[in-house]
Amino acid sequence: MTLSDNFNLNCPLPKADYPYVLLAHGGGGRLMHRLIEDIFIPAFGSQELELRHDGARLDIESSAVVMTTDSYVVHPLFFPGGDIGSLAVNGTVNDLAMCGARPTALSAAFIIEEGFPVESLVRVAQSMRAAAEAAGVRIVTGDTKVVDKGRGHGLFITTAGIGEVKSSRLIAPSSVRPGDVILINGDVGRHGIAIMAAREGLEFETTIESDCAPLVDSVMRMLDAGLDLHCLRDLTRGGLATTLVEIADAAGVHIAIEEAAVPVREEIRGACEILGFDPLYVANEGRFIAILPGKEADRALDILRKSAVDCTPMRIGQVVERVPDGQPGLVTMTSVIGSERIIDMLSGEQLPRIC
Amino acid sequence: MTLSDNFNLNCPLPKADYPYVLLAHGGGGRLMHRLIEDIFIPAFGSQELELRHDGARLDIESSAVVMTTDSYVVHPLFFPGGDIGSLAVNGTVNDLAMCGARPTALSAAFIIEEGFPVESLVRVAQSMRAAAEAAGVRIVTGDTKVVDKGRGHGLFITTAGIGEVKSSRLIAPSSVRPGDVILINGDVGRHGIAIMAAREGLEFETTIESDCAPLVDSVMRMLDAGLDLHCLRDLTRGGLATTLVEIADAAGVHIAIEEAAVPVREEIRGACEILGFDPLYVANEGRFIAILPGKEADRALDILRKSAVDCTPMRIGQVVERVPDGQPGLVTMTSVIGSERIIDMLSGEQLPRIC
Repeated sequence: MTLSDNFNLNCPLPKADYPYVLLAHGGGGRLMHRLIEDIFIPAFGSQELELRHDGARLDIESSAVVMTTDSYVVHPLFFPGGDIGSLAVNGTVNDLAMCGARPTALSAAFIIEEGFPVESLVRVAQSMRAAAEAAGVRIVTGDTKVVDKGRGHGLFITTAGIGEVKSSRLIAPSSVRPGDVILINGDVGRHGIAIMAAREGLEFETTIESDCAPLVDSVMRMLDAGLDLHCLRDLTRGGLATTLVEIADAAGVHIAIEEAAVPVREEIRGACEILGFDPLYVANEGRFIAILPGKEADRALDILRKSAVDCTPMRIGQVVERVPDGQPGLVTMTSVIGSERIIDMLSGEQLPRIC
Repeated sequence: MTLSDNFNLNCPLPKADYPYVLLAHGGGGRLMHRLIEDIFIPAFGSQELELRHDGARLDIESSAVVMTTDSYVVHPLFFPGGDIGSLAVNGTVNDLAMCGARPTALSAAFIIEEGFPVESLVRVAQSMRAAAEAAGVRIVTGDTKVVDKGRGHGLFITTAGIGEVKSSRLIAPSSVRPGDVILINGDVGRHGIAIMAAREGLEFETTIESDCAPLVDSVMRMLDAGLDLHCLRDLTRGGLATTLVEIADAAGVHIAIEEAAVPVREEIRGACEILGFDPLYVANEGRFIAILPGKEADRALDILRKSAVDCTPMRIGQVVERVPDGQPGLVTMTSVIGSERIIDMLSGEQLPRIC
């Protein structure tokens, strides 16, 4: 089926004549049905939701699927370059893509604080629909709960996704080998700084927009080209540094990266200096690393460049060697002035509630 | 694979030497990794979680799967007969069973309020593990977010589930036909009243326990017996009455039930009278209705009785006729004194946050 077979593109726009969400909208009765009929079914417009059953039935072609979930508690809900809705779709489809799976379907569960403006809920639902269309995935089932005023924070969304595996190799840290190279699909730090600026009302010379974007297309192009992808990982909470440490630990390897090769925009570098952040630890929502054999690096970079929007993919390092059994993985970075330092996982909290 | 192949039964019990959850436990860094390693991986003990990847890879035998999700915001978190953890597992596996699917895997996403006691989190995680084992399903992937104190309410859990379809017929309201009978697997109203009593500190002569339970076994036995199940639905928010109206509406039929046939325990009837509730609208977490052709009613009841724990399955009514096209469905109830009344969906809020 094509996307247009699945989406009812003639569905009416969501509209609701009540200004705020009430506790009773989560009660399972008539008001909850109205909320679903007025907002979510028109916004998501998937044939599975139209059936109004407890779950959605999906046809699966592959014998292996990937399942993933994330809750989104980002604050503020709306920020330059995205909102909690686009984040809740992109974050989850990206997790599927990172496992080498093409997203098949998403679920969406809403925890709404009593008194939340219906207008904002409509805006978020429409943003989810747009992000789902861009990623080629449908929102097929959902849930709505309302909590008392002061017991939530506007809106939390939890999405889960299932995807069909498109790779015969297990794309995971355990497949990482010495001799592999580390590629990144673009500059780091934009999402975290965009959220921080929106939250604190900071103004920079230019508005910093989140890099929030679906990564499905880039990953599928690399898989379709037959590249031997060993590991993929998006650079969300904890940023590039934490991700590299996680993978080095899980794979039992030493990863070496070059600071000069890691793309960071001037305005992000400036904002990080002012705020005391290290861009390597700042969250991204449209960035990932691909780890694959060195001899395939150039072909992979070519593909990444073709699907890059407004960013420059780079080769940032390689897997040097296995660490002795029982020892933790190691990540080192050669700085722009030539010194080498060990990169550790984020400890403590750099920036809460960025996703 | 059997359940014991998938669960690591020798895993250590969860333990953590920090008393409260901090914002930094949701930050994606070292503290979050500790929380996951200390609590969730030991508690859930599934091989997929052990891989520590962005998603879980699952082998699927069926070409059709069902996906479902629910957020759980029940208050209080612990109540007689269950807690938010058992509810979050049973509620979601029951939604899968209601679609005729055997649960394959669950995801679990936690939104924790800063300052939440780690001891309670461990208790909830263990309760989820026990419920998952009872339902024959694994928790394969998850997420942890922490929100600032005063911006949540202890703990919210969102689970999503996927299950493999075991029925060639679409088990859904659209399959309901005149001549079908309505069976219920036990007495109604226990969950809602148990939550209400726990929340308000009400004491009755006997402690009223939630009926929270997995329904997978009952449904699979009916499917294995080759029964032609037309529709299944669990009786959660909105209770039996709202569920019947939903199905009658979606199927375009008139459903007639007998008040005298609907089992309600004496203590529930008494509590409802005192509190001004109608037991037909009170939520349940271990009750469902099965709708199937009249000639199969006795066989189905036999099976339901065999898997019933502490409750009595009953035939409560039948599907009388189709309503004219374009008209809403109709549910009528013949009272114990012989009068007939129309049953409407719950309007407004009877009891917030019961699941």
